[in-house]
Amino acid sequence: MTKRQEHILQIVKDHGPITGEQIAERLHLTRATLRPDLSILTMSGYLDARPRVGYFYAGKQAGTVISERLHKMLVNDYKAVPIVVQENASVYDAIVTLFLEDVGTLYVVNQKGYLAGVVSRKDLLRASLGNKGLEGIPVSIIMTRMPNIVTCAPEESLFMAAKKLIDFQIDSLPVVRPAEEDSRQSELIGRVTKTTIARAFVELGSEPFL
Amino acid sequence: MTKRQEHILQIVKDHGPITGEQIAERLHLTRATLRPDLSILTMSGYLDARPRVGYFYAGKQAGTVISERLHKMLVNDYKAVPIVVQENASVYDAIVTLFLEDVGTLYVVNQKGYLAGVVSRKDLLRASLGNKGLEGIPVSIIMTRMPNIVTCAPEESLFMAAKKLIDFQIDSLPVVRPAEEDSRQSELIGRVTKTTIARAFVELGSEPFL
Repeated sequence: MTKRQEHILQIVKDHGPITGEQIAERLHLTRATLRPDLSILTMSGYLDARPRVGYFYAGKQAGTVISERLHKMLVNDYKAVPIVVQENASVYDAIVTLFLEDVGTLYVVNQKGYLAGVVSRKDLLRASLGNKGLEGIPVSIIMTRMPNIVTCAPEESLFMAAKKLIDFQIDSLPVVRPAEEDSRQSELIGRVTKTTIARAFVELGSEPFL
Repeated sequence: MTKRQEHILQIVKDHGPITGEQIAERLHLTRATLRPDLSILTMSGYLDARPRVGYFYAGKQAGTVISERLHKMLVNDYKAVPIVVQENASVYDAIVTLFLEDVGTLYVVNQKGYLAGVVSRKDLLRASLGNKGLEGIPVSIIMTRMPNIVTCAPEESLFMAAKKLIDFQIDSLPVVRPAEEDSRQSELIGRVTKTTIARAFVELGSEPFL
């Protein structure tokens, strides 16, 4: 947007509905000079015009609308079921679970069922390279352990969750809340993955109306 | 939205800027009766109001704005560099490349450099289970082979690419165009993954203005 277009937009925001003549007057320009700018602003959706009324601001900018919508999508409404293995499960068991459940990341839970660690497809691939006795290696040896795990809360926005996935270069975020009986423990209530985000992206593009 | 709210919206679209009094008159209702509906329509962003001017339509609906924006994001502007291995590379080589490049999927190219197949982290994990001689197994044996690969074109929208990732339950889409010397061959020019989509999602939520 040019300086002049920004100026026009501000005038219409402050004084609209306002005629083209009146905008031109305020800018000490002719109506003809402004015509291209007004056309661009109208076509791009910033302004709307009505005969005998003039130009008025056509609402929030697209970026604001989109950003607001994204921040209103909550993790709790999009989270998937967490796929877990017990801390004492073997690497072999974990690989079988990964294939059966068709996921990229497994969450490891302790005896009380609280989140203890995370093990990725890559961790399992690394462990299986050259190792034969995968049945004898407990998954807790190769997992990333709490508290070194990035998690998210159910009331966080999906936008924040996506930002964590990108910023920390991870594929999966456990959705947790502090356990009732012991707030230092994390109760596992879901997972958000890049698949969750891609699905939300498709949903956003598919809904013509909210 | 109630019938009455839809009716009000239509009146404002057709006759706005229009005062609350005038809307009430058209509906044969009192201004007081309409107050809650006008509040809802204003708060939800459908209408905007200005003192001494009245109500006017606040622009396109949020869903339309978002959908339009998503369909305008092109694969070509978001694609990442494809990570490739040669058809005659071993499964072991492929695993090393996967770790070094930190990707989930490798594209396999033939001698002329055109797309021949795709091999996923899961394919490699499966192959490495119980197999010791990974250096002796060519990656072409375990890859998914053309034409059984879902691809996308650079001029497709990121929305369409995301939809393919979800619909076909895959993690990665090779971005291809027909080779100049032989249009049956696919020249590999990029990749779109769920990471690409998550990154675009974060970008969408981060830009207050377009």
